[in-house]
Amino acid sequence: MISLEFNITVVGLGLIGGSYAMALKELKPNNLWGIDIDLKAIKAAEALGIIDKGYEDASVPLSKSDIVIVSLYPEAAIEFIKKHKNDFKRGAVITDTSGIKESIVKEVSALIPDYVDFIGGHPMAGRESKGLAFASKDIFKNANYIITPTEKNEKENIKLIEEIAKNIGCKNVVLIDAKVHDKIIAYTSAIPHIIAVALMNCDNFDEQRGFFIGGSFRDATRVALINPDLWSELFISNKDNIIAELEEFENNLAVMKKAIENEDVSSMKEIFNNAGSKRRKLNSNE
Amino acid sequence: MISLEFNITVVGLGLIGGSYAMALKELKPNNLWGIDIDLKAIKAAEALGIIDKGYEDASVPLSKSDIVIVSLYPEAAIEFIKKHKNDFKRGAVITDTSGIKESIVKEVSALIPDYVDFIGGHPMAGRESKGLAFASKDIFKNANYIITPTEKNEKENIKLIEEIAKNIGCKNVVLIDAKVHDKIIAYTSAIPHIIAVALMNCDNFDEQRGFFIGGSFRDATRVALINPDLWSELFISNKDNIIAELEEFENNLAVMKKAIENEDVSSMKEIFNNAGSKRRKLNSNE
Repeated sequence: MISLEFNITVVGLGLIGGSYAMALKELKPNNLWGIDIDLKAIKAAEALGIIDKGYEDASVPLSKSDIVIVSLYPEAAIEFIKKHKNDFKRGAVITDTSGIKESIVKEVSALIPDYVDFIGGHPMAGRESKGLAFASKDIFKNANYIITPTEKNEKENIKLIEEIAKNIGCKNVVLIDAKVHDKIIAYTSAIPHIIAVALMNCDNFDEQRGFFIGGSFRDATRVALINPDLWSELFISNKDNIIAELEEFENNLAVMKKAIENEDVSSMKEIFNNAGSKRRKLNSNE
Repeated sequence: MISLEFNITVVGLGLIGGSYAMALKELKPNNLWGIDIDLKAIKAAEALGIIDKGYEDASVPLSKSDIVIVSLYPEAAIEFIKKHKNDFKRGAVITDTSGIKESIVKEVSALIPDYVDFIGGHPMAGRESKGLAFASKDIFKNANYIITPTEKNEKENIKLIEEIAKNIGCKNVVLIDAKVHDKIIAYTSAIPHIIAVALMNCDNFDEQRGFFIGGSFRDATRVALINPDLWSELFISNKDNIIAELEEFENNLAVMKKAIENEDVSSMKEIFNNAGSKRRKLNSNE
């Protein structure tokens, strides 16, 4: 376990922020503070012992924090950092947790003072329910954690975020350019969420369908219980990548539809074998 | 547990047949026999104690079996029953396990003698790998089991299949018309498999994608490791229903794509809330 002789502040005590605080608490930092606009979330997090102390007024903990984890929706994260850009401690490392990276990294890097280091981060963890009540340190267990550094970032600070990610339970930590992150994530995260929603909304669904499903339907629709505020923002902010990936997915559906219509068994088998061998490689890389 | 004072034969010792035999063994039938064209599968099933005895020559066990579970691919199941229609014991109950029902029920009902009762069945259980090596009695645990009776079937025989389904571990057993089964299953089973394959085959996938996925991608593509022989047959035999369902799914994708392109947050939220409330109902019905 790493030694976290630091003061850490988590901004936003929702599902991810609350879970992050829970996981950090196990690492025994000097102080672990929380910031939220919702006084009830602060009181709950204090009562549960997730944080040492919570604040509605961000400037107090920010001025003494070595590490700040901003766990807000993308636009709100940028707004928060912009508003408090002069409140951070000299030398502080700031990171975030949002699922879109190019816009945040670009905007925040341009506006923060040179004496703090902002490093974009994306822990690929979530739940079908939002808020502190569903937070758990276990959501990071075996998850992937993506860091999107820039040339401005200090090597040792990138290393620090990597170490934290591993110590809260993540299995893989990868560094990648923010723009590339957004293109990959459109495919690996946005499209599966769009699929789940579109499948759930078919007319064939009724309340008795629970008796006619197997694992394939259950799995494909698990994330249809989507957070509308968060995901509409994520979809819009990564719009161009998502549209491009969606169109390729639609093309693949059209090819399969044609093969089924034509009862073209050899094309179908080629398509299935291709998908199967790719999925097998994924298993072996997980 | 029900008392199975019967001789039972399982035809086809693959993933489902092998699993079925394992689960039946726990119910201690008088005799549990297996039929397979692959002598190695028979020897393995005997050695593992899954069956009491296995046969390549079907006529011997069929003539003494009160219950016959035909666990072959759809076309092969029809062929098997046609070939052995005069080998069954008087009063025997025959069922199958395939994922398509109207064609099998219609064809088999027309060809079998009146002194045996064929009842279509579909245990919604499976694995990403095929064959006896992956069989397990646990695949039926909490699964759904669909029975598609006709007017010709004896009530007590339908009841018997229901009881067996429950006693091998299935959670829900439902009776439904075979034609309706095929329409529902096109939506709840075929489409999720088509989605998994189409998503897996997008160009964005490469072998490093394992580091950039969360639960949504993992779940949506789990069944992309598809059995090409079985599923090409299932897709073709249920072609009209599948094409219709696929087109509705494509329409839903197009609506979402338009909302994202137009940054239409209110439409997106309406779509998400609709999907979320449907998924929540599914959870509560599972």
